[in-house]
Amino acid sequence: MHPFTQRRAESVAAWGEEKLIAAIRRWLGNTSPPSPFGIGDDCAVLQPSSKAQLITVDPVVYARHFDDTIAPHAVGAKLLKRNLSDIAAMGGRPVAAVVSLTLDARTRRRWLEAFYRGLAGTARAYDVAIVGGDIAQANGTLAASLTLLGVATGSRVLTRTGARIGDHLYVTGQLGRSLPTGHHFRFVPRLAEGQWLARQREVRAMMDVSDGLAKDVHALTPRGAAAAIDKNMVPRRRGADIRAAASDGEDYELLFALDRDANRVAFERRWARAFPRVPLTRIGALVRHDAVPASALNLSRLHGYEHLR
Amino acid sequence: MHPFTQRRAESVAAWGEEKLIAAIRRWLGNTSPPSPFGIGDDCAVLQPSSKAQLITVDPVVYARHFDDTIAPHAVGAKLLKRNLSDIAAMGGRPVAAVVSLTLDARTRRRWLEAFYRGLAGTARAYDVAIVGGDIAQANGTLAASLTLLGVATGSRVLTRTGARIGDHLYVTGQLGRSLPTGHHFRFVPRLAEGQWLARQREVRAMMDVSDGLAKDVHALTPRGAAAAIDKNMVPRRRGADIRAAASDGEDYELLFALDRDANRVAFERRWARAFPRVPLTRIGALVRHDAVPASALNLSRLHGYEHLR
Repeated sequence: MHPFTQRRAESVAAWGEEKLIAAIRRWLGNTSPPSPFGIGDDCAVLQPSSKAQLITVDPVVYARHFDDTIAPHAVGAKLLKRNLSDIAAMGGRPVAAVVSLTLDARTRRRWLEAFYRGLAGTARAYDVAIVGGDIAQANGTLAASLTLLGVATGSRVLTRTGARIGDHLYVTGQLGRSLPTGHHFRFVPRLAEGQWLARQREVRAMMDVSDGLAKDVHALTPRGAAAAIDKNMVPRRRGADIRAAASDGEDYELLFALDRDANRVAFERRWARAFPRVPLTRIGALVRHDAVPASALNLSRLHGYEHLR
Repeated sequence: MHPFTQRRAESVAAWGEEKLIAAIRRWLGNTSPPSPFGIGDDCAVLQPSSKAQLITVDPVVYARHFDDTIAPHAVGAKLLKRNLSDIAAMGGRPVAAVVSLTLDARTRRRWLEAFYRGLAGTARAYDVAIVGGDIAQANGTLAASLTLLGVATGSRVLTRTGARIGDHLYVTGQLGRSLPTGHHFRFVPRLAEGQWLARQREVRAMMDVSDGLAKDVHALTPRGAAAAIDKNMVPRRRGADIRAAASDGEDYELLFALDRDANRVAFERRWARAFPRVPLTRIGALVRHDAVPASALNLSRLHGYEHLR
């Protein structure tokens, strides 16, 4: 559906701000708690938290992250899922979100309703409260940015820092061809998996793969080390070659480093019991920067998704 | 300064994403804590909080909230101050923020540097950590949305709900002509005042005036009541008539209801001791909806700032 309309009666402009906010609250339904814990005051009020908290922000922008071919409810779902994947990457649990909407006055109300209902459905599925937001007008633009708050679920938050030379590199699921296969809208954020991994002491560092393995793995690689990735081991989505798997981006899978001294067999067995339907693949290891085998994936020739090009 | 440039060498596109993020961290300086408590991981990690937490989000959009005549550092400062005013309105203290940036690839780096330095200066002044953000590209757009987290400073959070018929209405500072006088980016958010007011038991409800008194006061007015505002008492900025004072918007002053049974004289004396340089004015009272004096300000003829028109 094209998000803009030439018919004023079908546009948000025909409603004005107050009616639009009332409609958004209706579309969000029970994912939008009553004020002051939700929409309707100067701030939303959240309960105190005895655990470390997590915060992340990601947008969806028309003509950049979605176009007329993507159903608006899928755009709303994706907006939240992108952020859920970041919470998953730290081993956290999501709690509450606020949404900043920027729209053209010609935005079709039907588009917006489907967008918010898609967002609400995903929020309900992952127990996220939509507690606030803001609406701004900008000509020719349709964009929404969601800030998601979460909490640690165990005694630690798993970060990108902490891997050592010798650690094994693992990735969940499959990589590549996210756009042509629709994975970038249909993916399921790896929340349960991330929480489980944060509880395993042998896991030393973790992140989600969103800009492509070849680019993202650098963030997990400590100084003086390099990632030696076995081309033949990288799990590829149907139709993806190694270049696509390593650099397409929008995979939303978890990439982590397992302690070099861990019992790999026992670890992989525990994983398979916990997540029998989610593939887990050892794709390589962290080695000394001057000890990368010639057969390893050449990361410098694959740059992953580059923004602002 | 016009934010876009035709010279690629002066634009963010010449840098690409990684260099741009590195530059933003440099511009933010010590307001941007090291990862994982700041930029650089999938989420930023925030400390647990034993107090009720506050969350609010507000944007600045080119051609809507600012134009070429506004210095970019003032735009950055305003982005944070708008949100600080919302924290002030609940009696809270700000803690941490994330910034979602949407920009055209032609955005001038000099514009962006001044914007972030203005944001950082304000963050430093109010002890706010800029812990994360996101950058998205969109043609012809320059917008930033900031999500601000805060905490309650006392035993309660002051909301818009709680006023009763008979309560007195007070406003801080002066109203009207915010745009022509430059108040809309020079204002000082009323954080200390809001925190003080939240500690006074006689204050029953509070909000900030951002869309104009005539529109905003409805949010403080309980069912069955109406605001009887004395036209002659509304504090006006230099050059503002009553219409401007009641409906221009962008005042960022505090509006609150004082318990009808409070000792007004004692309360006003305590205020004057705490804030000798900030005017506080009783502008009227909440009355039964059918008991508004004919001389009162006619709110239905003044609508304040309407979005999406």
